[in-house]
Amino acid sequence: MDLKNFFSPRSIAVVGVSRDTNKVGHVIFRNFIDGGFQGKVFPVNPKANEILNRKCYPSLLAIQEKIDLAIIAVPAALVLTAVNECNKKGIKDVIIVTSGFKEVGNYALDRKLEAALKKYRIRCIGPNCLGTFDAHTKLDSLFLPRYRLKRPEEGSIGFVCQSGAVGSSILDLATEEGYKFSKFVSYGNAMIIDESDLLEYLGNDEKTKVICLYIEGVKDGKKFLRVAREVSQRKPIIVIKGGTTHEGSKATLSHTGSLAGSAEIYFGAFRQAGVIRASTLEEMFHFAEILSKSILPKGSRVQVITNGGGYGILAVDAIVNNNLQLSAFGKEAKRELTSQLPPLVNVTNPLDLAGDATTDRYKISLDACMKDRNIDIILLITLYQTPLLTTDIVDIIVEANDMKVKPIIVVSAGGEFTEVLRKSLDENNIPTYTFPEQAVKAIAKLVEYYGKK
Amino acid sequence: MDLKNFFSPRSIAVVGVSRDTNKVGHVIFRNFIDGGFQGKVFPVNPKANEILNRKCYPSLLAIQEKIDLAIIAVPAALVLTAVNECNKKGIKDVIIVTSGFKEVGNYALDRKLEAALKKYRIRCIGPNCLGTFDAHTKLDSLFLPRYRLKRPEEGSIGFVCQSGAVGSSILDLATEEGYKFSKFVSYGNAMIIDESDLLEYLGNDEKTKVICLYIEGVKDGKKFLRVAREVSQRKPIIVIKGGTTHEGSKATLSHTGSLAGSAEIYFGAFRQAGVIRASTLEEMFHFAEILSKSILPKGSRVQVITNGGGYGILAVDAIVNNNLQLSAFGKEAKRELTSQLPPLVNVTNPLDLAGDATTDRYKISLDACMKDRNIDIILLITLYQTPLLTTDIVDIIVEANDMKVKPIIVVSAGGEFTEVLRKSLDENNIPTYTFPEQAVKAIAKLVEYYGKK
Repeated sequence: MDLKNFFSPRSIAVVGVSRDTNKVGHVIFRNFIDGGFQGKVFPVNPKANEILNRKCYPSLLAIQEKIDLAIIAVPAALVLTAVNECNKKGIKDVIIVTSGFKEVGNYALDRKLEAALKKYRIRCIGPNCLGTFDAHTKLDSLFLPRYRLKRPEEGSIGFVCQSGAVGSSILDLATEEGYKFSKFVSYGNAMIIDESDLLEYLGNDEKTKVICLYIEGVKDGKKFLRVAREVSQRKPIIVIKGGTTHEGSKATLSHTGSLAGSAEIYFGAFRQAGVIRASTLEEMFHFAEILSKSILPKGSRVQVITNGGGYGILAVDAIVNNNLQLSAFGKEAKRELTSQLPPLVNVTNPLDLAGDATTDRYKISLDACMKDRNIDIILLITLYQTPLLTTDIVDIIVEANDMKVKPIIVVSAGGEFTEVLRKSLDENNIPTYTFPEQAVKAIAKLVEYYGKK
Repeated sequence: MDLKNFFSPRSIAVVGVSRDTNKVGHVIFRNFIDGGFQGKVFPVNPKANEILNRKCYPSLLAIQEKIDLAIIAVPAALVLTAVNECNKKGIKDVIIVTSGFKEVGNYALDRKLEAALKKYRIRCIGPNCLGTFDAHTKLDSLFLPRYRLKRPEEGSIGFVCQSGAVGSSILDLATEEGYKFSKFVSYGNAMIIDESDLLEYLGNDEKTKVICLYIEGVKDGKKFLRVAREVSQRKPIIVIKGGTTHEGSKATLSHTGSLAGSAEIYFGAFRQAGVIRASTLEEMFHFAEILSKSILPKGSRVQVITNGGGYGILAVDAIVNNNLQLSAFGKEAKRELTSQLPPLVNVTNPLDLAGDATTDRYKISLDACMKDRNIDIILLITLYQTPLLTTDIVDIIVEANDMKVKPIIVVSAGGEFTEVLRKSLDENNIPTYTFPEQAVKAIAKLVEYYGKK
């Protein structure tokens, strides 16, 4: 399904823009004014002439221009009226953020709304959702204030989320941590457009390199399997499922009304469809970090380079535990490193450059590892607390990474000074992690995904 | 062993204070000047009269006053001479940060140094270590610049670390994240004072509530077991072991020269000694967070309160997966909550207060949960992205926590706005986490530790 119009319409109407600054419709409209959306925005409220110094319209029909997308934020009892107006106005795409339908047991209203949308052939995201956010076009129907919820920069992670609260808080957190997004969708009750439609759309979206998905259940299992299998051929899909235990599954019923079904059935389906499963929200973003940035590895042999012995050991433990392989240096690399590195450095895996490691030692090591065909992936641990490691280490790493010969993944743990250097790496499209165990788990997923292709 | 003098001496000498600002001895001395240490500090360098505008002494013997502790930072070849001088000066405690002994195969020098220290009955931390940091007295022998490595605030986590790089980067990171420490020790080669001595000392240290330990191997297994068993009766010990795989274990040999031994033997010993095992560095701090702050729970029945449905479900999944119990409301609490909360709120576990949850709903829920004897632990999920959740939620939580009736653990994920509120909770001694899975894993360790007592 081509859902482009939900992310880059030329004109939108926000139906239900209250004067009350805390009300959902008001926040949405204000976010359009503040957010940099380039299209036209029309507020609708029969009781106001002006809101936030903009002309307000008594109804959709009072707007003379063509409207591509309506965002409906009126109380549940008024949603049907708004949908009828959309039909008259010729609007074919709507986002209904309003809640109060089947998720609270209001089945009668739910059925009426669904019937109306189907009759009018109106495509709908929602109801009971946050709707869409597009980091490129700045289409932003999230009804949460910008000071409480940061909006992410333009990037390549697409995020589809059944739970509005999970979606918004994770978007906020991930943005703070420097993750960049293409598109975000909270689809709520999935009355018309469901998770599979969104997956299919993001699968075709050029701006999206990796898709993250939080679901409690899927609406149509067969459809999901078909779409996921097809999309995962082209780009990685990372899924976290809420309600994997019997007790958690019961709780999904009163949340999104999902019949979560057996976790094993879901996990089996994910495997079949080539979908990568994350066990926690944290993992989901660690996996997205590597899958959105890294090039494809040629195998699973990992070389660890470190200036912290303990980190090297923890990385080796993690490599073994995640069923990856420890690479062994080829003759040429071994000879080169032995002749160029100080005698105290043991040329093995992990390659421990020691606490007094200089940037030059890193350069020598990186160069040799890039050339060595016995190494598929480089895990580079750089601890910036030691004074001999100068800040141009960043340039050395970026230069090597830009050659696009093999994946380079960087681990560095620390405070402000470390974060400054880490940010430079992030901006140069290098996957970075705080702990070796996180990095290795992510590497395993990179290998898993490309191993299948 | 009473090691108090290593953390709060009245006078110290730094032996080997170079003029070169990048050299270890210089950095240590400068850190004493900048760091707020209240005792007297004497720099020793035969080739300088003044360093950093302070009088410099040609040798330890040239110092007239009594010296409680010497920090030795001269090159390896000069360490013996420095130790001889310590003996003449009557100094009984030394920290030797210098490396170049058995860890690099220099066994002859190693044996000579050990013999001298034993002959003189000088107690030694090191060699090949960062030494000690005391957040209360500001004794700071870490030879890493303050701009690269933040020093933590005064707190109750004691951290003993075999790897200097792991120690320093984690100290830096943990400080950035708001963890507070009592004492930190990097003990290097453990020539005289080993991990068990330090464990015993921190076990008796009033400022230390929880002990974190990174080890690759222990020097004396029986001693460690005896001390750990004894100390863990009084305060929690959290251990992470490097080299748990065959390959990782091999790497520890060339790092700290530890014969890591079989991981199973270690894990068995940890269990016997009542030591809590962390699988990753990240886990270590998540466990320390709860164990340093929380009161003792009376059981393992957890009630989840949330304003994000998805988070509630993930929390329930995690509770089940970590073998904790989901509490069920007693009659009284059920009645109270049903009458006071809006009809849409399902009074169950998780208690989902919905996206429009107000601070008042949280207050009602917390009050009822505090009184209900069917609940041992409260897991409170507060997502601050929604505008109706006012900032006085912090006061409500702090007030409940101050009653010290049952543990309250808070989860909130988000960006800047969230972090500001989270910090207030942190400062009021409430354990806080970003993700429900992290919080629940930590709760499981709290229950495990107190369950044994």
